[in-house]
Amino acid sequence: MKKIINDPANVVPEMVDGMVRSYPQYLEKIKDTAAVVRADKDSMSGKVGIVSGGGSGHEPTHAGFVGKGMLSAAVCGQVFTSPTPDQIYEAIKAVDQGKGVFLVIKNYSGDVMNFDMAKDMADMDNIKVKSIVVDDDIAVENSTFTQGRRGVAGTIFMHKIVGALAQEGASLDEIDATAKKVLPNIKTIAVALSAATNPETGKPGFVLKDDEIEYGVGIHSEPGYRREKIRPAKDLVTELVGKLNDEMHLEGHKKYAVLVNGMGATPLMEQYIFSNDLLDKLNEFNVNPSFMKVGNYMTSLDMAGISLTIFELADEKWLEYLNKPVETIAW
Amino acid sequence: MKKIINDPANVVPEMVDGMVRSYPQYLEKIKDTAAVVRADKDSMSGKVGIVSGGGSGHEPTHAGFVGKGMLSAAVCGQVFTSPTPDQIYEAIKAVDQGKGVFLVIKNYSGDVMNFDMAKDMADMDNIKVKSIVVDDDIAVENSTFTQGRRGVAGTIFMHKIVGALAQEGASLDEIDATAKKVLPNIKTIAVALSAATNPETGKPGFVLKDDEIEYGVGIHSEPGYRREKIRPAKDLVTELVGKLNDEMHLEGHKKYAVLVNGMGATPLMEQYIFSNDLLDKLNEFNVNPSFMKVGNYMTSLDMAGISLTIFELADEKWLEYLNKPVETIAW
Repeated sequence: MKKIINDPANVVPEMVDGMVRSYPQYLEKIKDTAAVVRADKDSMSGKVGIVSGGGSGHEPTHAGFVGKGMLSAAVCGQVFTSPTPDQIYEAIKAVDQGKGVFLVIKNYSGDVMNFDMAKDMADMDNIKVKSIVVDDDIAVENSTFTQGRRGVAGTIFMHKIVGALAQEGASLDEIDATAKKVLPNIKTIAVALSAATNPETGKPGFVLKDDEIEYGVGIHSEPGYRREKIRPAKDLVTELVGKLNDEMHLEGHKKYAVLVNGMGATPLMEQYIFSNDLLDKLNEFNVNPSFMKVGNYMTSLDMAGISLTIFELADEKWLEYLNKPVETIAW
Repeated sequence: MKKIINDPANVVPEMVDGMVRSYPQYLEKIKDTAAVVRADKDSMSGKVGIVSGGGSGHEPTHAGFVGKGMLSAAVCGQVFTSPTPDQIYEAIKAVDQGKGVFLVIKNYSGDVMNFDMAKDMADMDNIKVKSIVVDDDIAVENSTFTQGRRGVAGTIFMHKIVGALAQEGASLDEIDATAKKVLPNIKTIAVALSAATNPETGKPGFVLKDDEIEYGVGIHSEPGYRREKIRPAKDLVTELVGKLNDEMHLEGHKKYAVLVNGMGATPLMEQYIFSNDLLDKLNEFNVNPSFMKVGNYMTSLDMAGISLTIFELADEKWLEYLNKPVETIAW
């Protein structure tokens, strides 16, 4: 393992300090935690708070999306490990403005359990909390750390929608209702060329041969659904779009947002080549995305690979919400 | 070589198409070239045009910085290879509004020669062209493709300053004069953990041992100044800041902008840990940056490593220019 770190046991606190100190205009650390809260407190005033978080190693997720118009706070667990309930609870308290707090949780058993416990703690303080569990990864049912489907890069779209709603003053119930409508419209699937090496263990999550790829891998190196020899970008697009289409039934009269997401070590050059082939493939369905992003948004440390998220914009308002300006490090 | 590409000979045109098609709100391709121009033509009206470019493989540089308030156009050469004079000339013509065009060139012999030839071609069309050659890399004098010092990540700061000046209506002479003042204040140095693999050759630019790093490597895998065993992030910071301080004489009463730049395959986690140590080290000089960015800005495909740029804000206006809003993919 060759990494730019100090003590492997301290990577998360040092990273959080580095983020907050590098971007004090966006982030403040919540005292004695690895949670960060929006520095621009004025923009949270009188609004529902939006809190997300999870294991670290997916940067810029989640702290990179804390700021006006998006998340109010993010809780950073140890690498690939859920944050503790008390830290989530501290984040809920830090952002509550009397209007309640909405939690965006990725579907991992540890996250679901710990965010639920934090919600119970907040209930006892009479802070109203609702939540959504994002399970956008269509690759497999159940997984190493998950009952049901995993929550992956599509979570970013959920952050953006609920963040925009909160910013315009929507109530907790309105945000909850919209999040529930949005959720089944976001689907993601990935292909990996190599696994991440967790600095705490020093070992890669799996090993692929020099000419091998794996479809459907998770963001913590959970197994996918097939290994085969590397193929041209066009073929990877065909595979991933085919799987998504089986779920979503892509049609030209519908509107879509698309996220082509680099897993951490994949150059933008490859992400753009993939995107070019993707847009050709979507054209075969007469689909031309209404909104698109390409880049490293939900990474898995130094994993090489790409995930593809398609979000059907079943409500016209959702495109508006995606396009609303934000003040964050990474959106 | 395992990459998400199709034909290695076509990576650049496919990448450029992918960028332009993914972000039509920012970019248009100049017909029959691999050059891109700002989609928002209104924002260029009556202004000096700003053109940069160079070999591809450094994404999001340069096309990611094309947009209102920054570059007017970017010319994308083959991987790690200067664009041809005719393509640069097409970009100059595409952005000229009768006020002249300013070129930001990185100091590589091929780039300098080809941008100069394009300037001569534009002269014959009576388009006024001036230029700056950025040579911010302090690691070595002369290099594989360079007389003098190499131009690297600090170029982004130059883009931002001249882009902001052009946007506020500065003349070509004013932009040229400011660029000349800015240039000696931007200094960069890098450390590499691994080299990039050029898709056209299929080979890494160099090979380091599993526990080895190299200081001062260039963005095309040009040699640095020392190889040694990997050390903690704090020690890498000490080495790089020490070298920069030898050049710049860091002092607490001066203002600085800082760019911590990932080379392509280095996770943000490592970049933020490095940033945390960096801010500690700068504190020893009583320096607290007035402006900071951390992320993948000037990459070298899948190279692992970090470069550190320090820009002394010798003129108060420069901080204002760095903070002006832009509409680009990547700033």
